[in-house]
Amino acid sequence: MTSSCKIKDQFHKFFPEIVRCLKSSSTLSELPSMQLWIEKIVEYNLKGGKMNRGLAVVESFMIFKNDQISEQDIETAIALGWAVEMLQAFFLVADDIMDDSLTRRMKPCWYRTNNLGVKAFNDSILLESLIYQILLSYCKDRHYYLPILELFHDVTMRTSLGQAMDLHSTPDPNQSPDLSKFTMETYDAIVKYKTAYYSFYLPVAIAMRVSGIQDERLFKQAEDILLPMGRFFQVQDDYLDCFGDPEVTGKIGTDIEDGKCSWLIVTALPLCDSAQRQLIETHYASKDPSSVKLVKSLYQQLGIPKLYIEYEENSYKQLTQMIEGIKQQLPTSVFQGFMEKIYKRLN
Amino acid sequence: MTSSCKIKDQFHKFFPEIVRCLKSSSTLSELPSMQLWIEKIVEYNLKGGKMNRGLAVVESFMIFKNDQISEQDIETAIALGWAVEMLQAFFLVADDIMDDSLTRRMKPCWYRTNNLGVKAFNDSILLESLIYQILLSYCKDRHYYLPILELFHDVTMRTSLGQAMDLHSTPDPNQSPDLSKFTMETYDAIVKYKTAYYSFYLPVAIAMRVSGIQDERLFKQAEDILLPMGRFFQVQDDYLDCFGDPEVTGKIGTDIEDGKCSWLIVTALPLCDSAQRQLIETHYASKDPSSVKLVKSLYQQLGIPKLYIEYEENSYKQLTQMIEGIKQQLPTSVFQGFMEKIYKRLN
Repeated sequence: MTSSCKIKDQFHKFFPEIVRCLKSSSTLSELPSMQLWIEKIVEYNLKGGKMNRGLAVVESFMIFKNDQISEQDIETAIALGWAVEMLQAFFLVADDIMDDSLTRRMKPCWYRTNNLGVKAFNDSILLESLIYQILLSYCKDRHYYLPILELFHDVTMRTSLGQAMDLHSTPDPNQSPDLSKFTMETYDAIVKYKTAYYSFYLPVAIAMRVSGIQDERLFKQAEDILLPMGRFFQVQDDYLDCFGDPEVTGKIGTDIEDGKCSWLIVTALPLCDSAQRQLIETHYASKDPSSVKLVKSLYQQLGIPKLYIEYEENSYKQLTQMIEGIKQQLPTSVFQGFMEKIYKRLN
Repeated sequence: MTSSCKIKDQFHKFFPEIVRCLKSSSTLSELPSMQLWIEKIVEYNLKGGKMNRGLAVVESFMIFKNDQISEQDIETAIALGWAVEMLQAFFLVADDIMDDSLTRRMKPCWYRTNNLGVKAFNDSILLESLIYQILLSYCKDRHYYLPILELFHDVTMRTSLGQAMDLHSTPDPNQSPDLSKFTMETYDAIVKYKTAYYSFYLPVAIAMRVSGIQDERLFKQAEDILLPMGRFFQVQDDYLDCFGDPEVTGKIGTDIEDGKCSWLIVTALPLCDSAQRQLIETHYASKDPSSVKLVKSLYQQLGIPKLYIEYEENSYKQLTQMIEGIKQQLPTSVFQGFMEKIYKRLN
């Protein structure tokens, strides 16, 4: 087994341990019906994904520590990796309700199971609470306990601000989109806050804290690379939402239907003549399959897939240079490992 | 001005300061559109209530410290009081969506404004994030910073567990209620977790921490009184939901329509003959005004209002005795003050 497969294996094998630990907490052991419910929520919403964010905590930690790690340290890093996956589950359960999504990780979204509907929002809050239960159980006495608590608070707030900007740029159902809101500037702000902090900066920043790094300038340097990498990832996500294979991505894209401020639309708009802009005005943010088809073929006509490939190439080169630039301060393999995982991904 | 009015006045006057502080945080100062949005959410959802929970932090703190307090200490207690009000706003915004409520504090519920709908969930998460911004701004360097952080986490989890138990006991729209779920045992668990911890235990526990109390036995003693007091409060709330005056309570009760596990229904059921039980089976959890009327007149017929008055009297006596019993350990006026505020309340 390669080292990366071994970590993955160990990470997955630790999951039942996390569930057991959460269920035996002093609060939950008083409430047997809630123990079962929590187990159900966690099983459904934490498994089946790629676990890139959680694994990144462990992999980065091992690089920072240069493999000089005790078994107990690895377990702590794994538990913190699961805390990041918990944060992701908290957001996804809530976002899927707000975005009216259908599927996630090849399954119906949580709110569409168990007759839940909007009541699933409470489960998303429970998932968030479990993050802090994990931290309490696995690192209460460590020197990095408080900085990591604060990191989760900070990243949660930034992510919700990103989600707010996203929601504010998206038209209400059956309303025409306000195309003036779809600018690259707005897009960049949404992506940075909604995705890049929690998916890219958070796992590495946790690994840095656990490794004993405290110099704030190093956190800033990591952030300066990881936020653009998060943007790169989100642009891919937007492309795959429209042009990816649902069998491979595990979800049915609805960005056009929902009238999202996606990379495709903000790239397309400046290239449109007035007739094409009128087509978007009429057909973007419509649930009608023929409207969706028209928007997709306009994207093709404007050469968006080609522009995407170019963006992907250029962005990859730029990020590689940035990683090279900090090699005196931080181990480059942390960032390269991340890049390799996402470059040319199909899901 | 009485001392209590003076505190109230000072508490309210500090609100713009809290808003200013939140808006100038490093994250929000980068995002002008979000500064305005946060201000709007906070203004709408934190003002107009009775502020009992927030004020209780300050009033209890002053009693614990026997009025030996600097102006700066009072400000910290006020800020923490606003953090408790923020937690309350976080729950109310979310609960109103899940409960399909119409009004709150004489105004439409937040999710029914600004075309929000389910998107208001994200605002509830933002309100939660602001709790930790307040703690960061006002008590980062105090010895009680971490215990209070953990207290908020713990209470948030307990409250969401209570909300989960509440939601699980409530039938889906247009479904008959499962009357076997409406037991006093279930009711007690819901109320303890959903209301008593955050409304009664939390403000006093914060005041204890800020006063420097660290003996865990004292926290347990306070909890042993405050949780039953929270139950007392919730029974009142259930009564007022059905028999209160909406002009005075500020909200239109929907517990019968929603099929809630309320004190009235769990008290009524054991008193019903089979025809009356059938009436509840058919008409409880129905939005039809004539059904609601039938359930209300059954409550009258079973003498529920009289039983409520008796409960109120007995409960008051019991709680007074319990307060008397701990006077060697904790100042009784903290608990008496709370009782006076809620006993015989009409809103």
